[in-house]
Amino acid sequence: MDLSIFFVGTGGSVPSARRGLPATLVRLGADRILIDCGEGTQRQLLRSDGLADLTDIFITHHHSDHWLGLLGMLKTFELRERERPLTVHGPPGTKALLERFRVVFGRPSYGLSFVDLEPDEEVRRGGYAVTSIPVRHRGTAFGYAIVEDTRPGRFDAELAKALGVEFGPDFGRLQRGETVNGVRPEQVIGPERRGRRLVFSGDTRPTDHIVAAAYEADVLVHEATFTDEDVDRAQQTGHSTARQAAEVAAEAEVGLLALTHLSTRYHGREIRDEARAVFEHTEVPRDFDSIEVPLPDRGEPELHRWEPPRRPAPDPAPAAN
Amino acid sequence: MDLSIFFVGTGGSVPSARRGLPATLVRLGADRILIDCGEGTQRQLLRSDGLADLTDIFITHHHSDHWLGLLGMLKTFELRERERPLTVHGPPGTKALLERFRVVFGRPSYGLSFVDLEPDEEVRRGGYAVTSIPVRHRGTAFGYAIVEDTRPGRFDAELAKALGVEFGPDFGRLQRGETVNGVRPEQVIGPERRGRRLVFSGDTRPTDHIVAAAYEADVLVHEATFTDEDVDRAQQTGHSTARQAAEVAAEAEVGLLALTHLSTRYHGREIRDEARAVFEHTEVPRDFDSIEVPLPDRGEPELHRWEPPRRPAPDPAPAAN
Repeated sequence: MDLSIFFVGTGGSVPSARRGLPATLVRLGADRILIDCGEGTQRQLLRSDGLADLTDIFITHHHSDHWLGLLGMLKTFELRERERPLTVHGPPGTKALLERFRVVFGRPSYGLSFVDLEPDEEVRRGGYAVTSIPVRHRGTAFGYAIVEDTRPGRFDAELAKALGVEFGPDFGRLQRGETVNGVRPEQVIGPERRGRRLVFSGDTRPTDHIVAAAYEADVLVHEATFTDEDVDRAQQTGHSTARQAAEVAAEAEVGLLALTHLSTRYHGREIRDEARAVFEHTEVPRDFDSIEVPLPDRGEPELHRWEPPRRPAPDPAPAAN
Repeated sequence: MDLSIFFVGTGGSVPSARRGLPATLVRLGADRILIDCGEGTQRQLLRSDGLADLTDIFITHHHSDHWLGLLGMLKTFELRERERPLTVHGPPGTKALLERFRVVFGRPSYGLSFVDLEPDEEVRRGGYAVTSIPVRHRGTAFGYAIVEDTRPGRFDAELAKALGVEFGPDFGRLQRGETVNGVRPEQVIGPERRGRRLVFSGDTRPTDHIVAAAYEADVLVHEATFTDEDVDRAQQTGHSTARQAAEVAAEAEVGLLALTHLSTRYHGREIRDEARAVFEHTEVPRDFDSIEVPLPDRGEPELHRWEPPRRPAPDPAPAAN
């Protein structure tokens, strides 16, 4: 199943000409999971990957640069006559926060729910789960882990035949865990294969909760609002420096570290260089870049730079407002 | 004094890849007057003309595509440590509407006021006034006229000298309306010259209020959400077709008609062609295009297509959120 991370907005707190406000899209098979939704996210998507009917939305915390784009997007889904229900998940208080803004998006006919998650709560979906990770920002804030279900081990058909099991129903019995003609499943089936694991820190100071959740993750998307020159400021405002994020990645032994939520004072190179001095497999995506995450035995996660299409994607034609 | 209209967002109701949500900037000398502020307006400005410390903001009505971008922008001004007070004007209920969203932008230290305008109310500024025009949309909605003060007539210095008035304080007395050495001011000063007049329809069905306010205006910026094929739909939703907008412009004998608030179903050409069949001096600006409005005796208003700068403007470096 295809899995990739599409960086919709890689800035923090205020937008810049180059970086939109926080939003990251996870594309897992046909599912589209949005993490955070800063102002302008719907337009960023229209200008790049297209504005899909999102499967779920997860908000990391209640600072407005992380959710303000929801209001217009929820309204647009209604104008586009979306039919599929949509749930917005977030830390405690998310439901109350968004209910205050009903005046904007009303009661959409597609069925809209808001869910307050507890820390370490798991939201199960087909083939994967999303889990909230308590982090250390100003006020309650979550990171999220998206983890694929474990896949069964490889079945060695040649070996099974050599041991005298015939191709046909007996193969199925072995794969379901039954012993067939004295051949035990573990003789012909390899160890379970772990699913891919992506972790998103949200806004946070460095925290062991992210180290634990991201242990051997394929990709850790961590905030790096500052460089180490501003380490005191990072501490005061509940943010991380590039070096700190890289230390988290190194301790967690992740496959690839991607840094986002850059203050407008940085271009990206300073952030990347500082992090790479600690953890080499670091990227600083720009808006619309993506990271493809292959199955663990098929390669390493890799950054793809955005190339604009020759023509913009066709726009939907909704009712007028 | 330089006067131009900068088209920040020319779409309506939902954004598209090409057109942002409604926002139009009037640049009059050093003043920057924003009319409407759809989601993403601050980023549109950062990507083009720069996000200036706006002088005043006028909202046409309370549909969210016309004001949602205020919330993040008001917050950004605070993070950027704006010092100059800011007033947001709108139809009755604007103050109550925006107060509901205080949670987003708080109580900025620069001093933020919301003012509900009456229909036909004039807001005076240095050298010009902005007047609300009642229009016909769903719910209370305003257009706005921005009208420069009348300028005194031209002083004919050569003629004054020939009539025996000496260069010096006597010139000033004549210009202030005094008779000097038997020479009356009207002998050497031409008729008063009208100020430039810009009219913005906001969202509306065709209305005589706009015809009256826009009479002989230099530029009329009128909505044209639909083409005439959808005239019934325009009627139902309180919008105009391109033909209807052109008829308003023709009746008002404006200098130039600029059409905005296009439904995403149109590219612009259909809108332009339909309007030009009725009123030739019609343009359909794209995002970031501008119209320069020279003094009446110095030329005609003219559309300038946007050319992206070689490098984006430098970004401000605000505090982190």
